[in-house]
Amino acid sequence: MKLFLLVLSFLFIGLVATAQSDSVTIQNIFNEELSHGQCHENLRELCKGYGKRLTGSPIAAGAVEWSFAKMKTYGFDTVYKQEVMVPHWVRGNPEKASYTLDNKASINVSVCALGGSIGGNIKGNIVEVHSFDELRALGKDKVKGKIVFFNRAMDDTKINTFEAYGGAVNQRGRGANEASYMGAVGVIVRTMSVGINPFPHTGAMMRYTDSVTKIPACAISTQDAEMLSKDLKRNPALNFSLAMSCQWFPDTLSHNVICEIRGYEHPDQIIVIGGHLDAWDMAEGAHDDGAGVVQSLEALRLMKQLGIKPKHTIRVVFFMNEENGLRGGVKYAAVAKANNEKHLFALESDEGGFTPRGFAMDATGDTLNKFLGYANLFKPYHMQEFRDGGGGSDIGPLRDLGCVMMSLTPDSQRYFDFHHAATDVFEGVNKRELELGAAGIASIIYLVDKYGM
Amino acid sequence: MKLFLLVLSFLFIGLVATAQSDSVTIQNIFNEELSHGQCHENLRELCKGYGKRLTGSPIAAGAVEWSFAKMKTYGFDTVYKQEVMVPHWVRGNPEKASYTLDNKASINVSVCALGGSIGGNIKGNIVEVHSFDELRALGKDKVKGKIVFFNRAMDDTKINTFEAYGGAVNQRGRGANEASYMGAVGVIVRTMSVGINPFPHTGAMMRYTDSVTKIPACAISTQDAEMLSKDLKRNPALNFSLAMSCQWFPDTLSHNVICEIRGYEHPDQIIVIGGHLDAWDMAEGAHDDGAGVVQSLEALRLMKQLGIKPKHTIRVVFFMNEENGLRGGVKYAAVAKANNEKHLFALESDEGGFTPRGFAMDATGDTLNKFLGYANLFKPYHMQEFRDGGGGSDIGPLRDLGCVMMSLTPDSQRYFDFHHAATDVFEGVNKRELELGAAGIASIIYLVDKYGM
Repeated sequence: MKLFLLVLSFLFIGLVATAQSDSVTIQNIFNEELSHGQCHENLRELCKGYGKRLTGSPIAAGAVEWSFAKMKTYGFDTVYKQEVMVPHWVRGNPEKASYTLDNKASINVSVCALGGSIGGNIKGNIVEVHSFDELRALGKDKVKGKIVFFNRAMDDTKINTFEAYGGAVNQRGRGANEASYMGAVGVIVRTMSVGINPFPHTGAMMRYTDSVTKIPACAISTQDAEMLSKDLKRNPALNFSLAMSCQWFPDTLSHNVICEIRGYEHPDQIIVIGGHLDAWDMAEGAHDDGAGVVQSLEALRLMKQLGIKPKHTIRVVFFMNEENGLRGGVKYAAVAKANNEKHLFALESDEGGFTPRGFAMDATGDTLNKFLGYANLFKPYHMQEFRDGGGGSDIGPLRDLGCVMMSLTPDSQRYFDFHHAATDVFEGVNKRELELGAAGIASIIYLVDKYGM
Repeated sequence: MKLFLLVLSFLFIGLVATAQSDSVTIQNIFNEELSHGQCHENLRELCKGYGKRLTGSPIAAGAVEWSFAKMKTYGFDTVYKQEVMVPHWVRGNPEKASYTLDNKASINVSVCALGGSIGGNIKGNIVEVHSFDELRALGKDKVKGKIVFFNRAMDDTKINTFEAYGGAVNQRGRGANEASYMGAVGVIVRTMSVGINPFPHTGAMMRYTDSVTKIPACAISTQDAEMLSKDLKRNPALNFSLAMSCQWFPDTLSHNVICEIRGYEHPDQIIVIGGHLDAWDMAEGAHDDGAGVVQSLEALRLMKQLGIKPKHTIRVVFFMNEENGLRGGVKYAAVAKANNEKHLFALESDEGGFTPRGFAMDATGDTLNKFLGYANLFKPYHMQEFRDGGGGSDIGPLRDLGCVMMSLTPDSQRYFDFHHAATDVFEGVNKRELELGAAGIASIIYLVDKYGM
């Protein structure tokens, strides 16, 4: 019993001593960031200089060069570009959509092409449905030659808006395929946004499957979806027309952009931080995912600035093509595998630059418990919500290499006001909220590097 | 030992049973609010109809009538206005301020009169200081006839921005008195805002004490404060001019606006929810404190809508004149005392309509522990941060009546982007964030009513 108490007291002393020095380091990280943070100004440069940086575009190529040059300014050990062949889809002219009701003047509606859609001019009657089951139950006769309108709203009662998104987004992803299979000539999908607002939000649809005819697919704002639904009750035979000029081009050379500080003890063991550099072409990709890349870069800057020398190699990756292909993430993991690189841990920030709540982890057993034990260190920053189930699209392919995953989890309430819409501009990102996320990332990386998995 | 275990198991059963039914009720509250919430639309009506509702103004009188009529629509047991005599200060024409540097063209700066300042046209040299100690150490000879520029910034490294505010706001409150005592002819105070931005924020200064000469006092935007400070280093003798036409008028009749649902068991025991109806005259008072009043009203609407019949009387108070006098809060408590009313509990929402983090309590012993025990019920809504030290200006005077105090505590990061500035408009308030706060208030009131103090 005495021995047990002795052991216990040693453990306790060890724990307390560690926590104290760690809490000081973490406080230094937050103080430096909130008083001399650079990520907000970096975000401004990226958003205002390279706003519509959709994969394959000249603006995306410019964003790659900006990123490379910006990383160079910080004096890290390595800065390089990693080649990736990426898809190249272009929206073309502004989309036009309208309908006539009772033979009166046409009513314009706010739509935008879904990423990956073909262009085309279509006219026809509308079939409104809320699920694939409802669509299939109609039978092909009732769908043939018509435009399918998927109008299932995100569930506003979900506290985590990503959960509401998950409950609605299959309409956007698979809607065109499902509708085409039933003989439809086009697809209108209710925008993935909470509440009612006038902005259509784009986003990737699945590639058309070979067995179906390609048909144009667009998103309609939630406000206009409501209006259209009401008008369909008045006149189920109303005539809808849609004109889009999107086009596919051959794959294009692009790059992931990478920088790192080499570890002094295990340089061959890698900890990755990242977000995606590409963005939809609706605005500036400020929250999605300008915030994530500038925060990732800032985390490395903070470590260097504060003289935190990592045992493992800390690498920042600006992934290319998360939005409509994930080629950057896939390529990065493939190269890592081919080079037999040991990836310990990867963290992605791709849920917006909002006030952070904590982290989500894809870890199990002792690793998970170790991470959960860090939560108290984040209480002073209101980032103590550590929960199971994290990851990220770009880092996802690293899972096969045995890499432990984490995501920064900001407050989700405002995310779908901005996501893939014309509203996602620099001005929508609060400096302090962005900085708190960057400091949080630097802090958790400091702990992961120090205590391992 | 067996008895102990038996007691323990009963306690445990009791706890779990209670928690289950409560968690269902609370979920119903959040679901109703997020799917059919009315507070956002109410806030729009208030902000767009009665924007600059500064105490004593005709707009404030209009806001009283709007509030009374709005409360009437909900069919509560009682709706009434409570008379309050309020101070009446008017800003007058837009303020003008500029300085000349090296005899070149004049440089305009963004200023606004501090609430309660006298008007006047002054010109003079500037003395920049960062504290009252620094001012006093200069001696009267160096201050006499000059304009004192208080330029102590809010501390950006404070995670809770209200703490940073507390560390800087005495310059605004007492600056004019301190400077006048030293012989100054005017005062410029650095705006109470985090970071650097172009908006001057107003706010109340203390009444001039009788022993000093009244001198004009204004706030200058943080951006222009930085510029002025730099220019003072180049030319300490630069000439500053300030013109303000503010005026005081005699006290005016105004009102607190009140509604309630009477308790079925203890109608004479009162639980108060409130915010303040008056707002500064810079914009629309959306976060400060339109959010608080519409959330308070919404909490009562939610209880009625969901058929939650309270044991105690639940009363909502829209307090008048928090910003520059607190007359509404003082009057309300005085009437309560005169009528020998028993006030159990008061909750104020006056920290903006941002995503809620939890509640702060001014309670001790068993009451505090009981409240802390509620925190888990708020975890699904990410509102589990229950901490000591809450209250509110308007409900403050109820403390003497033995009333337990609580405040809703939203995330504080963005508050001082809006507070008392031209930026505080309806569009800056997110619907879901506002609604979560309203649902949180209804939920805690439900628990307080059910389980008492």
